[in-house]
Amino acid sequence: MLYLIGLGLADEKDITVKGLEIVRKAERVYLEAYTSILLVNHEKLEAFYGRPLILADREMVESASDEILADADKVDVAFLVVGDPFGATTHSDLLLRARQLSIPTQTIHNASIMNAIGTTGLQLYNFGQTVSMPFFTDSWKPSSFYDRVAENRRIGLHTLVLLDIKVKEPSLENLARGRKIYEPPRFMTVAECAVQMLETEEERKEGVYGERSLAVGVARVGSTEQKIISGTLRELTSIDMGPPLHSLVLLGKRTHDLERDVLAEWAVNPEVLNEVWTKDYAKQ
Amino acid sequence: MLYLIGLGLADEKDITVKGLEIVRKAERVYLEAYTSILLVNHEKLEAFYGRPLILADREMVESASDEILADADKVDVAFLVVGDPFGATTHSDLLLRARQLSIPTQTIHNASIMNAIGTTGLQLYNFGQTVSMPFFTDSWKPSSFYDRVAENRRIGLHTLVLLDIKVKEPSLENLARGRKIYEPPRFMTVAECAVQMLETEEERKEGVYGERSLAVGVARVGSTEQKIISGTLRELTSIDMGPPLHSLVLLGKRTHDLERDVLAEWAVNPEVLNEVWTKDYAKQ
Repeated sequence: MLYLIGLGLADEKDITVKGLEIVRKAERVYLEAYTSILLVNHEKLEAFYGRPLILADREMVESASDEILADADKVDVAFLVVGDPFGATTHSDLLLRARQLSIPTQTIHNASIMNAIGTTGLQLYNFGQTVSMPFFTDSWKPSSFYDRVAENRRIGLHTLVLLDIKVKEPSLENLARGRKIYEPPRFMTVAECAVQMLETEEERKEGVYGERSLAVGVARVGSTEQKIISGTLRELTSIDMGPPLHSLVLLGKRTHDLERDVLAEWAVNPEVLNEVWTKDYAKQ
Repeated sequence: MLYLIGLGLADEKDITVKGLEIVRKAERVYLEAYTSILLVNHEKLEAFYGRPLILADREMVESASDEILADADKVDVAFLVVGDPFGATTHSDLLLRARQLSIPTQTIHNASIMNAIGTTGLQLYNFGQTVSMPFFTDSWKPSSFYDRVAENRRIGLHTLVLLDIKVKEPSLENLARGRKIYEPPRFMTVAECAVQMLETEEERKEGVYGERSLAVGVARVGSTEQKIISGTLRELTSIDMGPPLHSLVLLGKRTHDLERDVLAEWAVNPEVLNEVWTKDYAKQ
């Protein structure tokens, strides 16, 4: 059996009881280590689970999935994913491949940022499609997220923006030279995201959002170090929310009074939030 | 401290290790028993947790929240919610009330249908806003869900439809007579939902979806009895997916080839699915 097991968001104790039982009896245990990270390192997971973990990078999952699936028709293999196993497309691929090989599969779900973002007090029913924000470079500033945000905004919905992480990726220079030398891990911050959003609005000029648009930054959701801050995009460009992981929500205008009450608690500047809300967001 | 603890989707072992540790040491443990249910009864939870559970119905949570919060500034109170604590608005209210009383709070997240629906193979990025489908009566057929589905469809997105459950609700007759006598629990099925959707299209006639629209029905997600079926809405009107809980996804047209491959595996009739997909859903 191939088990896909979600690890939740923060630390080694966010695994479910069911997931832990499987990890402890599986023949091999892989940890998917490139689409997200927990706030503890894999040694801590190994100590708590009482099992050695095989780190699975993008290369292994995408090109060598048969290695992961070897003998899984006879023995139990556990594949651990931070958050829920279905956050990233890659794991659908792995399941599909398992089914082609007639390997039975089971998924143990867990929290992911896509539902835990409700911790902001924003109602999950009012979220539109989720988008991803990639790190811009001097020559590469993809703005497809902008069109998606525009679609959500047009119908009044909030947008969850997932921020880029780079783990075990070669630099362009090393890639060009065919060298497997990796850059240090990078995690986009709420401030960097807000800067890139304003840069994109400056470029596209379609008025999808602007300096006065309200947004909520979150960091380390699900941990005791969780932090939530609300304010205008301009305000968020100079916010330091500490260590990763960060995400951002851009507010839609189909709001609920209860949402205002909660957002006020996290405000960088309650007066600014109140003024912008009353002028631009409250039901007329 | 007030702890809001998600229980996940299926049974007593879907709680996280962290959640279970808190349940075992809390002074009082409440189980929210009206917005969703696990697939096991509360006696089974009590046996596994080793703790008595106080059942909290809608009345208690909405009108007597101070009873739940009593002494929570001095002792630990655990409030258990099926899925993730932020699926239903009610729990935002409870947190807000706790903060007003200066009671510290912490949330232990878990899987909810809103992220676990990824188990269908449909990509979470392609979902728009989630809607709820209420039980229709002869005189009450609210169709606000139809407008939301229309918004999602217009931009090509899938819609997750959450199906009504009625637990501990008085009949209209008993309500009118002020009697606290409750009807037996009812859980909407995928077939009932498909029937109501087609009835609403018949009524509204805006062509948002129709008998040939593709949808995916799911039942008991996260359990070993999980079932997934894909087909046209017409096909789903006569499907029996067994015991609760059920949910439905109405397909958007911004699809991915990988989604077709996965949906084909769950098809009521693979030929019909294939024909409709090629004609109406595949990228031209």
